[in-house]
Amino acid sequence: MKIAVLGGDGYCGWATALYLSNRGHSIAIVDNFIRRQWDHEVGAQTLTPIRPLADRLRTWQQLTGKQIELFVGDVMDYDFLSSTLREFEPDAVVHFAEQRAAPYSMIDRKHAVFTQVNNVVGTLNLRFALREFVPDCHLIKLGTMGEYGTPNIDIEEGYITIEHNGRKDVLPYPKQPGSFYHLSKVHDSHNIMFTCKIWGLRATDLNQGVVYGTMTDEVAMDEALINRFDYDEIFGTVLNRFCVQAAIGIPLTVYGKGGQTRGFLDIRDTVRCIEIACLNRANKGEFRVFNQFTEQFSVLDLAHMVQAAGKKLGLQVELNHLPDPRVEAEEHYYNARHSKLIELGLSPHLLSDSLLDSLMNIAMRYRDRVDASMMMPKVNWRQARNDRHLQPTLSTQPVGADLEVLQPRSPKRNGDRRSAAQSKREVAYSKS
Amino acid sequence: MKIAVLGGDGYCGWATALYLSNRGHSIAIVDNFIRRQWDHEVGAQTLTPIRPLADRLRTWQQLTGKQIELFVGDVMDYDFLSSTLREFEPDAVVHFAEQRAAPYSMIDRKHAVFTQVNNVVGTLNLRFALREFVPDCHLIKLGTMGEYGTPNIDIEEGYITIEHNGRKDVLPYPKQPGSFYHLSKVHDSHNIMFTCKIWGLRATDLNQGVVYGTMTDEVAMDEALINRFDYDEIFGTVLNRFCVQAAIGIPLTVYGKGGQTRGFLDIRDTVRCIEIACLNRANKGEFRVFNQFTEQFSVLDLAHMVQAAGKKLGLQVELNHLPDPRVEAEEHYYNARHSKLIELGLSPHLLSDSLLDSLMNIAMRYRDRVDASMMMPKVNWRQARNDRHLQPTLSTQPVGADLEVLQPRSPKRNGDRRSAAQSKREVAYSKS
Repeated sequence: MKIAVLGGDGYCGWATALYLSNRGHSIAIVDNFIRRQWDHEVGAQTLTPIRPLADRLRTWQQLTGKQIELFVGDVMDYDFLSSTLREFEPDAVVHFAEQRAAPYSMIDRKHAVFTQVNNVVGTLNLRFALREFVPDCHLIKLGTMGEYGTPNIDIEEGYITIEHNGRKDVLPYPKQPGSFYHLSKVHDSHNIMFTCKIWGLRATDLNQGVVYGTMTDEVAMDEALINRFDYDEIFGTVLNRFCVQAAIGIPLTVYGKGGQTRGFLDIRDTVRCIEIACLNRANKGEFRVFNQFTEQFSVLDLAHMVQAAGKKLGLQVELNHLPDPRVEAEEHYYNARHSKLIELGLSPHLLSDSLLDSLMNIAMRYRDRVDASMMMPKVNWRQARNDRHLQPTLSTQPVGADLEVLQPRSPKRNGDRRSAAQSKREVAYSKS
Repeated sequence: MKIAVLGGDGYCGWATALYLSNRGHSIAIVDNFIRRQWDHEVGAQTLTPIRPLADRLRTWQQLTGKQIELFVGDVMDYDFLSSTLREFEPDAVVHFAEQRAAPYSMIDRKHAVFTQVNNVVGTLNLRFALREFVPDCHLIKLGTMGEYGTPNIDIEEGYITIEHNGRKDVLPYPKQPGSFYHLSKVHDSHNIMFTCKIWGLRATDLNQGVVYGTMTDEVAMDEALINRFDYDEIFGTVLNRFCVQAAIGIPLTVYGKGGQTRGFLDIRDTVRCIEIACLNRANKGEFRVFNQFTEQFSVLDLAHMVQAAGKKLGLQVELNHLPDPRVEAEEHYYNARHSKLIELGLSPHLLSDSLLDSLMNIAMRYRDRVDASMMMPKVNWRQARNDRHLQPTLSTQPVGADLEVLQPRSPKRNGDRRSAAQSKREVAYSKS
């Protein structure tokens, strides 16, 4: 089928575009490269040296003979978005084209406003463009498990049956999002639900958990196809960050007690979930919600798993419990349903030692690109303005010769540093 | 106390500012007059000839000796908003400064985007400005009963206790808003709840029903203080519109079956509810929700009440069931709790024949200003673009000599048209 991937140059978007292309779908990427710009703004970069999108797409075509179309522009630009949809006429649109980092949205007022306006208006534009030009097209929208917060009852998939004063109804599950970013996704969900109702559009909201990993079969084909691997405090997801910290021998930054429990999934499951949603269209007027994760872990669970996996690699991994920069429960009940995608055919890649090994080996391979200072939390939820002064001094030098100066707890890896070639072999993990 | 009324030149805002001033509070109005601009845009005007705000404030000072301060600017402008709050240092901020018409938000994409960005960013700005400059100030935010939609269970005030799979929690009441405008209020509610939590701010969300009436004790003091009276299909609320239709002898425009049931309140209760919220501050970090209405009616109930009241005035009032331009249930369960404001001291002005008489008399008095064509619904929820072509032809002439041409059902009022003086006496209804 014809699938447009909005935000196809990003972390999940790139892996998704390649996966769907490899599965024989006709793909168009729509992107404005603002994600790359944010790296400059926050002073971070992906651990892995990603190539310009044009290079990536050329390599993909050389390797597979498959051409991915590219539309360069912003979903905030309605003329661009509508002309793109009219030209490509997709059967499905996968919408990753949002600002997706909670800490980025919490930097200050401008970042909060930017995140909400960018995400909400982009999605509103998409709803209107679909209504006007391709009304039968199925929207697959990336939401987040963070929309639900941490209620003291089981989390259902989008809706909950409530009995109250002798009557009953199925209502949208109450939302308690924990950042201006997560709020933007809640706003989106409400807007999409409404436009399904009034215009009879089709939509699937994928409330995704925290994604880890970077490799998929397609990305592993060639280094020019390498995916992002964000480990910084703003865009890095927790497990990826822990693996980098373990690999370079600095303590894992656990926020507070680490009892924060969330849903997680491997990026290989992200791409498969998207395909499942595409192949199983929502009905006309249906606003369908799937919880897209495969396992629940607390942050401390993950830290201990990384510690154990590191030990097997000869790494001594320590934990550093920092004051939680977020306003969130550090211990709480958490039990979220996630059966709908399984019922439609998802076979999860559960978190394994081999995946943790793979992530740590990627981190070892690119350790010269690591900036250890980027992993300490600097965005504090309790402040309305967070410092944006980047100081390229000693404390932000790449981790290497000065590591001992930066971090008293130096890497205690047994044996010599392995060759890049050796590390490279370990990057492409076995296809389970 | 010192109270800033954002949107104090509007329908509810003006009545509130005068009421609070009269009760001895120190008031500042913050407004950018965009509400007056929207009248030009949609081709409507208030039935009542409202004066420029400067005239209104001068008259108020001459009559009462009380000065209301004025800050002219847009809450979207953070520099303006924050300098205003720093200068005035309010104890409470009453936030009416939003685009508040569902049909306006449904005109097309630009109006949907404008409504959501204007409302959401204005409120975000306010939250940040309060956090930065007057963190102890209490926000009183106008929400809407329309945030809840029409669930098949009782509507509670903001939160609902849910028992599910053997566990229990108190969660935000699920929201099913019915327009891009109502959605913007849901977005606001989520944003405000979050900022109470992370910053310990105080907030009360007043989920207001449909307001009717135009007179308050203060507004009635002098014609220069007269309040808005919107009867057009965009900004007019249903009961006000029905009274104008009855008064000028055109059929009441009932959408569909008219079984749509909503909460309603007299504008005299609006202003009192605001004062009650001001005098009873939310706690630090508390996000408090009150349902602000006094009675439930279906649209058809109201039509029949206007019909009956008209009969007593010698008016023959007919009903015109039009296809519903909105996407909403025309018959449904509706039972919404509204006890918290009563418990804090509200004594409701329930809908009475004398109020209906008063509204119809105001309409009679200003009948030369009525444009009957403005009352027919033209904004269709099912379309992504609604026609904005205003045609100042026969069909939009003021209702008067040409009424019979426009509307076959001409006014069949017994007796002659009464004098303006006579009508004027009836405008100031008895203070119940």
